[in-house]
Amino acid sequence: MEMDKNQVCSEEKHSLKNMVSRLFVEKLRSLPGRVWRQIWKVGHDDPRRVMHSLKVGLSLTLVSLLYLTESLYKGIGQDAIWAVMTVVVVLEFTAGATLCKGLNRGLGTLCAGSLAFLIEYIAHESGHVFRAIFIGIAVFLIGAAATYLRFFPYVKKNYDYGVVIFLLTFNLITVSSYRVHNVQHIAHDRFYTIAIGCGVCLIMSLLILPNWSGEDLHNLTVCKLEGLARSIEACINEYFRDSEINEDRSSSSSSEEEDPIYKGYKVVLDSKSTDETLALHASWEPRHSRHCYRYPWQQYVKLGDTLRHFAYAAVALHGCLQSEIQTPRTVRALFKKPCVRVAEEVVSVLMELADSIRKQRHCSPGLLSDNLHEALQDLNNAIKSQPRLFLGSNRSQTTNMLAVAAAAANQKPTKGSNQTSLSSYKTDTSALLEWRTKRVANQSKESDRKSLRPQLSKIALTSLEFSEALPFAAFSSLLLEMVVRLELVIEQVEELGRMANFKELKPGVEVVVTCDAMPTKKTREVQPHLGSHDIE
Amino acid sequence: MEMDKNQVCSEEKHSLKNMVSRLFVEKLRSLPGRVWRQIWKVGHDDPRRVMHSLKVGLSLTLVSLLYLTESLYKGIGQDAIWAVMTVVVVLEFTAGATLCKGLNRGLGTLCAGSLAFLIEYIAHESGHVFRAIFIGIAVFLIGAAATYLRFFPYVKKNYDYGVVIFLLTFNLITVSSYRVHNVQHIAHDRFYTIAIGCGVCLIMSLLILPNWSGEDLHNLTVCKLEGLARSIEACINEYFRDSEINEDRSSSSSSEEEDPIYKGYKVVLDSKSTDETLALHASWEPRHSRHCYRYPWQQYVKLGDTLRHFAYAAVALHGCLQSEIQTPRTVRALFKKPCVRVAEEVVSVLMELADSIRKQRHCSPGLLSDNLHEALQDLNNAIKSQPRLFLGSNRSQTTNMLAVAAAAANQKPTKGSNQTSLSSYKTDTSALLEWRTKRVANQSKESDRKSLRPQLSKIALTSLEFSEALPFAAFSSLLLEMVVRLELVIEQVEELGRMANFKELKPGVEVVVTCDAMPTKKTREVQPHLGSHDIE
Repeated sequence: MEMDKNQVCSEEKHSLKNMVSRLFVEKLRSLPGRVWRQIWKVGHDDPRRVMHSLKVGLSLTLVSLLYLTESLYKGIGQDAIWAVMTVVVVLEFTAGATLCKGLNRGLGTLCAGSLAFLIEYIAHESGHVFRAIFIGIAVFLIGAAATYLRFFPYVKKNYDYGVVIFLLTFNLITVSSYRVHNVQHIAHDRFYTIAIGCGVCLIMSLLILPNWSGEDLHNLTVCKLEGLARSIEACINEYFRDSEINEDRSSSSSSEEEDPIYKGYKVVLDSKSTDETLALHASWEPRHSRHCYRYPWQQYVKLGDTLRHFAYAAVALHGCLQSEIQTPRTVRALFKKPCVRVAEEVVSVLMELADSIRKQRHCSPGLLSDNLHEALQDLNNAIKSQPRLFLGSNRSQTTNMLAVAAAAANQKPTKGSNQTSLSSYKTDTSALLEWRTKRVANQSKESDRKSLRPQLSKIALTSLEFSEALPFAAFSSLLLEMVVRLELVIEQVEELGRMANFKELKPGVEVVVTCDAMPTKKTREVQPHLGSHDIE
Repeated sequence: MEMDKNQVCSEEKHSLKNMVSRLFVEKLRSLPGRVWRQIWKVGHDDPRRVMHSLKVGLSLTLVSLLYLTESLYKGIGQDAIWAVMTVVVVLEFTAGATLCKGLNRGLGTLCAGSLAFLIEYIAHESGHVFRAIFIGIAVFLIGAAATYLRFFPYVKKNYDYGVVIFLLTFNLITVSSYRVHNVQHIAHDRFYTIAIGCGVCLIMSLLILPNWSGEDLHNLTVCKLEGLARSIEACINEYFRDSEINEDRSSSSSSEEEDPIYKGYKVVLDSKSTDETLALHASWEPRHSRHCYRYPWQQYVKLGDTLRHFAYAAVALHGCLQSEIQTPRTVRALFKKPCVRVAEEVVSVLMELADSIRKQRHCSPGLLSDNLHEALQDLNNAIKSQPRLFLGSNRSQTTNMLAVAAAAANQKPTKGSNQTSLSSYKTDTSALLEWRTKRVANQSKESDRKSLRPQLSKIALTSLEFSEALPFAAFSSLLLEMVVRLELVIEQVEELGRMANFKELKPGVEVVVTCDAMPTKKTREVQPHLGSHDIE
């Protein structure tokens, strides 16, 4: 018996061991596949990445030729290594970022060189020991001052990299000048090789398949407008869906990533630093389009701010869907048509704005606002035609809203609603008491804390039986707020159109905007590339 | 006459010239003062910046001694320059950032060195030309592959700097090995000096007045909770203020920067990338407190996400203040007490949470929720006791709300409200017509576009005369939503307390939270420092 048990035990152990090792082998076998899929995905998401990688490889090989080719090496020598260094550090994904870093590097090197020679000049005549002390003090002071300078917001935003390079170069020159005496010669050679490196970088990023930060910013803005439109459409469809599905909050928040509503406005919410970096780099880029005026990249940043402001309203609207207290579907259905119409108008305005930016033409504000105004009017009338809606009442009463509304003319409403509120108050108090007893019992148990929490929130909110119309009022009010903020967005887009000289709409031709115009297939999301040292 | 005029003209010109030059001199004279104030401000905002600058200066001087001191220079020689370079690039504001960069640099250098020697070993036996081709191909392939690797999100987040250094070192070694033949010797020396540089950086950032990213993150979280509390308090005070002040939207948005409400939640909205960077660096930091378990920095990031979710509700609440349609102050006054109470409870919960995180002790959830629940109950009762509120009505009717409510029992409400809505509809249509006529007249004038816009939004919204209670319903509904989200925040803070082993509250002692506990003086805002190459 004992032996049998042991045997069973060892057999089990053995089979478990086998299974683990088999799983491990399985996993190891699937590893290349997974790695390959990941590699493919990165390239598939944005094929420009592959091109950029090849460009970097090519630039490095070109610069290495300075070293590898006999004739070139004779001319330049050891310092060719600085060209390699420059290419590795300066060549960035977009032309703007490369220019920004390259010019920062150049400026930093020049300033540092001048200052170093000045100090060299001052210290030149003095004795050996005094000179060492002088250099030491200079290194300390310049080091501290430059580091302090990097804390200034303006410097940090625009010239952080330049200051680092300044500090680096200054120290290299000043310190080596103490031992090496043909510093000027060294600096001269080094400057040439750095210039060669920068030249290769500029040719690669400006002339061969350039990626423009400005274009990225432009596309990102269009993408954000469309994302918001999709988000609002999904939100309104969800709110007025016919079937009653009770998803609890926790499950919906866990699948937040796949939620189309969330995905739509998330791009906008997180876009602040991306916008600013792209605009900064875009402002370094030469005018590559046929326009030769100064393109208003900062206006894109402003538009981004306004869009974020608009997106907060979308978030609040989404919050209405997830709220604990919900207006019954039957009540919602009463207002479905006007609400959907307002939302549709908002969506079509957003799509029209996105389209106008994409095609760089002025939008047609009049047409848009007319429809929007009519839709608002409808909603207003609908709300006014249901005065009973906003009375405090319990569930059964509100469900048969229309019947009650018809009967309401013949009875005194205040008395009736007072009675219901009194009874519901009683329920609340007992629920509260019940919850308190539970809480005292559980107080000491640490592990119960987690399970207690959702229950508390449920009691605190659903048992209160606030007027069920309250959340609907909030919903419609948020829709209105959204329309107000939409006006601000339109204003910014118009300003952008004026500043960037968008094409004029022909006065006779009216642009017909339909909601069907919204692309149903998922457009590839723009993934902007920030240089590696960008948000410095 | 003509001459007089000329004389006057020239005199005017002269005086103008004088004035301009005087202004210029004035400005030039005040320049040092302004620059000095700016310098002082940067240091005053965070005195650690001054310390950091001095630390960098000191480190650079120390490393320079390798060059300046005769005996040290004899031992190390020219390669000492790499120590200087390492200090400039690696020494960052916080210990975490320095460690992150230092280890990245070390790892990158090691990998690159190994790979370079492998390639050197393979190419060693072959002929001169073949070797050059082989090196060229290797440089191309490794360059392209390493650049492509930087696009992987995981690598970009954690090891971007390491990959850059890898590429740099690999190219330097491989390319120089073609000409120089004692590469191993060079690499050996260089490695030592880099180690010296890293050592200086580590000593400076870990031992001498260290700044911890983890501490910054901790303080920032406390600061965010307090900011939200201040924001909500200011918001509710503003909403229920007695005096009727009609600030128009444009003026309020221009002074947005000084708005205490805006300032409170802005810190939270913009904190995403800061949170993530600080948490990343904090995870590199050694446990500097007496606890030696793994501190849950990622939980701070999660809490930050939840706080941002909460802040969106605060933004929406703020939106209620700025909205075009406003509930009359008299109606608001009816609900002032319960609303203020709910808000006060929310504020005190936030302050308690902030305090619990600051002092690293568990919070007392029971007490908090009890009060909150009672406050909600009050609000519920208040809303139920005013059933007339949510009827569609015009301004004069709602203003005398109480009188009307008393009279309402004796009349048929639906008929009356139908009449008012009918008359208001008529107003709307005429307003719309009026606006349309204007629009057609202005259609062609480009310059009028701007002035037309605000007018349009005013007509579109205020003339509609939505039930004036609608915005109030939205306001109270948002308060409720806020309470729900507050529960999520409490949950995250409790989770944080559990994971970070916060001190236990003594069971007998109840924490008394009062709203007066809120600091009235402006606490110094935490200004987190991100390393220069952090968000890479």
